[in-house]
Amino acid sequence: MTDAAVRPNKPATSKRTPAGGAPTAAHTAEEASEARIDVAAVTRALLGTWADTRLEAREMIKDPAFWRVDGMPMPEHRERVLTQLHLLVEAGGSRRSFPKEYGGLDNNGANLAGFQELVLADPSLQIKSGVQWGLFGSAIYQLGTKKHHDAWLPDVISLALPGAFAMTETGHGSDVAAIGTTATYDPETEEFVIHTPFRGAWKDYLGNAALHGKAATVFAQLITGGVNYGVHCFFVPLRDEEGAFLPGIGGEDDGVKGGLNGIDNGRLHFDHVRIPRENLLNRYGDVAADGTYSSEIASPGRRFFTMLGALVQGRVSLDGAATTGTALALYIAITYANQRRQFDSGAGTDEVVLLDYGKHQRRLLPRLAQDYAQFFAHDELLKKFDGVFSGTADTPAEREDLETLAAALKPLSTWNALDTIQEAREACGGSGFLAENRLVGLHQDLDVYVTFEGDNNVLLQLVGKRLLSDFARQFKGADAAALAKYAVGQTAGKLFHGAGLRQLGQTVTDFGSTARSVELGLRAEQQHELLSGRVQQMVADVAGALRPAARMSPAEAAAVFNENQTQLIEAARAHAELLQWEAFTDGINRLEDEDTAHVLTWLRDLFGLSLIEKHLAWYLINGRLSTQRAASVSRYIDRLCARLRPHAQDLVDAFGFAPEHVRAPIASGAERARQDEARAYFADLAASGELPTSEKALKKK
Amino acid sequence: MTDAAVRPNKPATSKRTPAGGAPTAAHTAEEASEARIDVAAVTRALLGTWADTRLEAREMIKDPAFWRVDGMPMPEHRERVLTQLHLLVEAGGSRRSFPKEYGGLDNNGANLAGFQELVLADPSLQIKSGVQWGLFGSAIYQLGTKKHHDAWLPDVISLALPGAFAMTETGHGSDVAAIGTTATYDPETEEFVIHTPFRGAWKDYLGNAALHGKAATVFAQLITGGVNYGVHCFFVPLRDEEGAFLPGIGGEDDGVKGGLNGIDNGRLHFDHVRIPRENLLNRYGDVAADGTYSSEIASPGRRFFTMLGALVQGRVSLDGAATTGTALALYIAITYANQRRQFDSGAGTDEVVLLDYGKHQRRLLPRLAQDYAQFFAHDELLKKFDGVFSGTADTPAEREDLETLAAALKPLSTWNALDTIQEAREACGGSGFLAENRLVGLHQDLDVYVTFEGDNNVLLQLVGKRLLSDFARQFKGADAAALAKYAVGQTAGKLFHGAGLRQLGQTVTDFGSTARSVELGLRAEQQHELLSGRVQQMVADVAGALRPAARMSPAEAAAVFNENQTQLIEAARAHAELLQWEAFTDGINRLEDEDTAHVLTWLRDLFGLSLIEKHLAWYLINGRLSTQRAASVSRYIDRLCARLRPHAQDLVDAFGFAPEHVRAPIASGAERARQDEARAYFADLAASGELPTSEKALKKK
Repeated sequence: MTDAAVRPNKPATSKRTPAGGAPTAAHTAEEASEARIDVAAVTRALLGTWADTRLEAREMIKDPAFWRVDGMPMPEHRERVLTQLHLLVEAGGSRRSFPKEYGGLDNNGANLAGFQELVLADPSLQIKSGVQWGLFGSAIYQLGTKKHHDAWLPDVISLALPGAFAMTETGHGSDVAAIGTTATYDPETEEFVIHTPFRGAWKDYLGNAALHGKAATVFAQLITGGVNYGVHCFFVPLRDEEGAFLPGIGGEDDGVKGGLNGIDNGRLHFDHVRIPRENLLNRYGDVAADGTYSSEIASPGRRFFTMLGALVQGRVSLDGAATTGTALALYIAITYANQRRQFDSGAGTDEVVLLDYGKHQRRLLPRLAQDYAQFFAHDELLKKFDGVFSGTADTPAEREDLETLAAALKPLSTWNALDTIQEAREACGGSGFLAENRLVGLHQDLDVYVTFEGDNNVLLQLVGKRLLSDFARQFKGADAAALAKYAVGQTAGKLFHGAGLRQLGQTVTDFGSTARSVELGLRAEQQHELLSGRVQQMVADVAGALRPAARMSPAEAAAVFNENQTQLIEAARAHAELLQWEAFTDGINRLEDEDTAHVLTWLRDLFGLSLIEKHLAWYLINGRLSTQRAASVSRYIDRLCARLRPHAQDLVDAFGFAPEHVRAPIASGAERARQDEARAYFADLAASGELPTSEKALKKK
Repeated sequence: MTDAAVRPNKPATSKRTPAGGAPTAAHTAEEASEARIDVAAVTRALLGTWADTRLEAREMIKDPAFWRVDGMPMPEHRERVLTQLHLLVEAGGSRRSFPKEYGGLDNNGANLAGFQELVLADPSLQIKSGVQWGLFGSAIYQLGTKKHHDAWLPDVISLALPGAFAMTETGHGSDVAAIGTTATYDPETEEFVIHTPFRGAWKDYLGNAALHGKAATVFAQLITGGVNYGVHCFFVPLRDEEGAFLPGIGGEDDGVKGGLNGIDNGRLHFDHVRIPRENLLNRYGDVAADGTYSSEIASPGRRFFTMLGALVQGRVSLDGAATTGTALALYIAITYANQRRQFDSGAGTDEVVLLDYGKHQRRLLPRLAQDYAQFFAHDELLKKFDGVFSGTADTPAEREDLETLAAALKPLSTWNALDTIQEAREACGGSGFLAENRLVGLHQDLDVYVTFEGDNNVLLQLVGKRLLSDFARQFKGADAAALAKYAVGQTAGKLFHGAGLRQLGQTVTDFGSTARSVELGLRAEQQHELLSGRVQQMVADVAGALRPAARMSPAEAAAVFNENQTQLIEAARAHAELLQWEAFTDGINRLEDEDTAHVLTWLRDLFGLSLIEKHLAWYLINGRLSTQRAASVSRYIDRLCARLRPHAQDLVDAFGFAPEHVRAPIASGAERARQDEARAYFADLAASGELPTSEKALKKK
């Protein structure tokens, strides 16, 4: 393993001498005079607002103690990751988000930025840290009050108190409001009785529950005085000093999983477990000694979503970690594709470098463009998260936007991670299937990102509903004339978009010089028009289809909604794609170097055009593209791929990974060494006159 | 593990009482009067021509000794699978394809049919068996002659001689012709000298190479008298009785892989290893004692492809195993989706069964339709394979068709396996990520199917080239009038198709009653016209784009080909999709039960329409569908999904899996038991008057 991380013998990175040696140099003589990117500047842009913390985390995880060891049996892997968490504490990595009075740094953005980088070391480390500090610790901090902070936060931060976050049940995942666990208040003893009434209400899939958790933040239906006040969170001790379950508590190990086997996921159940009244994490709802319930938030629904919203950081961090994990896969596959040769071209010359094949470019470069878009979009998300949680921009509207943004971006980036890692693995052939080359492990570990912290489809449906309510708001109090205007067509779209989630006109002020993004009427402006127009119309279409439901019985209305569920989810996806495109464009506009912006504009165009190609049928059916222009999209993408090909190594070098982050032998330069050796062998043989004649040549004589 | 295989308490399957209990019964009162499938008849149809052998294999693997144990460390897993191979020998499972004089059954079709079922027990078992008998044994049998058969086949069959198939090298996978290993004939000693000249020529990724292989069939460049006669296969002993490498042989363990860790893949290299002249497997080419080379096949190219073609069974069997593995994933996900409830619908009633959600139907049912198509297509492939290898239909044309058919179907079914297993895993949420529910293990093990035995993209490119040569053949000797006719438009398509790979008019004689496949001008005839028309035009388009290459320099011609590589691969995929659709349709036409054919025609329509939806932009751009009709495709698919929903359980029950094959707790009925328990709990609570009032209800008062 460690051998792979030895720094390959390559020249220092500079703007005109890209890292990685020969294959990353300009591809042809012509291209040598073309724009090249400033790799270091792009790295800074990709690392975003909290670049320093990211670099600090990357420096820390150069230590092999943090690395995933392939094939390590589950029990050892779990202990190894627990040890890594202690190392993280020693390095100060556990305290960034917590308040200064408990030794923290009160820096939410930096916390997530640093934490996400752990995915490069071992995703199990990233997620187990997330369980301890992002979920268990955050529940205490965000849902509890000072007495809870005083009692537990120092031990949470120091890992003296490892804990589980007991929300999900076997019977209920995404539908948290329907969980079965009860917390019934007993005024006689001033205790809550935590109880699991049936098997489906067992808490399940909880990290730290199988082995290491000493306590848990348990979500349960709060019942007092015969009334169910809905889901609240309680601090419940689980195990004694020897690690044995306390009375009334039981559980099971979830066993082997598809990945993340360094985490001890498990199940918990409670048989009338009594905890003090004070253990209710009471920031948003409290029960007095006599059993009286009180809350600042009158609406049960709003209270529930406020509590869940306080835990949004999980989704934010998965977006970032998925984006970084995807970048690693792309670095490995593109570096290999830039060195590996296979088949001669029929032109009688040398075997062809994989990345010179049209199909290979098509497989990898649009995914590279997508990941760039994600980096820029994630930084926007992280800034919004930091604004809300630092209090500098903490309004209900900002919170709602943050939650919607996280729910929009996390599904796309986590799905894209799986898609890209898989394509990268296939693009590396048999060597991609070896664990040492990282790709299969990344896929296995990141697999569950698409369904945890909110199932991706459920999250997109939430976004879709938000879009529908934004849409409806446009027409609230609108007079007949305004509605008629909408009915005519296009203006409604603009109206809607102006007040939509993204205040478009304010942020995307300049699409860059038209000379950059060029041809075919598919410049930045047209890309934006096509992408945003699609969101508008899809939302309007679904809204129109759902309108009759308002006059139907609940059962009929549910059926109509169900018929449009797929379309609503697609509209949400279109919205998220637009956000990514806009963030990418904004990011390019902030670049200072002209040549760098030039190349990145091609990459942004590749992203935009790939989205349009993906939805081409929609554009045609809805008359947004002529068949002629539609037919040109794919060819244009092919040309963009060819144009970006000489920059591919620069673009993945710009992710800024050190060999200790990559650790894949096939991306270490070993493949190039092998190719060079083989070519030298044949050249020497030919020079010495000892190369056997080919049978074909013999027959010609 | 074993618990999960306990047969759930469900009523016996009968036509009108589908298995699985309540949720699989007719979904509404109306549907109760609709057609239901004859589950047993469909099982027979899916099992195909060698149903008995398949059932025999399924019976054998009910023994837990054959099952994959999740989380088992690699060394133990390797030994376990080796033991399983011995069990397989005892059960007579290793001899079916070999000649009777060596104790075999001379039954090639049955051999693959039975062998493929092993994927249900442990894909490592399937693939390690494939290495031993399908590759190592087949090479000796197919490429060797009687002296080789006499010497080694009995020990190969009995596993007294475990072996590796040493074709792939670190530096060359799909491009076998370019491997670096040499076998140089030394007339002095009448020996071949097997040698690895550089690191890239190490044999790599070979099953049985790391530990268990006592010998290998080694592919190397045959050099005699200073002439290279191209790649031939040699029998090379590897290890002594104690398992130590023989002199001159070295190797490495490939270590942990993304899956299939029950197989000891490894690397081999040879330092001037001498083997007797007789060890050349000399069916297609021989070297006399004096070094003179001779072959029945004069053309070096044709000789090479004949040798490779003799080993086509690997691809055939992967198509079948992938199809069966996909069926298992669908069985698990659909059974679970039919029992699991989540979220109430807003209609104020019970929580909704997952499979009642429009989106959930969309995720799983088109993939079910795809897998049905694969079962029928695979049986066609298996019959063709058996015809060629039994000698009943062994002509050069049949061989070429077989190879093209295998190269067309294997990519689609193996990619679809990964796609479907992943969707199934996501559709099962967190429980889908647990190893005990099988889906993650299936994905990990089947991952490499898409790149081994021929990388999928490389295989499709081969198919594309065959389509191009078929196309060109249409115009060979055609006069100006014929060419002009082609230029005008549509007739060429028919011409081409008539002589294409599939003799369409002969096999698809009846599309079934029009009443069955219904509406919107998208009946069977139109589906077929759209799918076949697409193949024709795509091939013609690529041929047109490549035509100028004939007058270009090799380098320019290579560049033109490269520009069209993606399109050529897409044309091959379209061709394979058409073959699957036709096989599905043929299969329905063979069904006797009217109602069964009725439901399966909906499923076939879902398959056809899903293909058309996937390529909708192409149909629009090429004027094959009006925007209006195109817009109706997606809605039609939604309706087909809703119509098939009540049949979903029947359709997966028809795969015929026993609990010992499924072994996934979530598909065992445990989920339904949990749901029933939870609902009973709330019903009892409500009946007893002890259900807490909801806060919302309280506020209304």
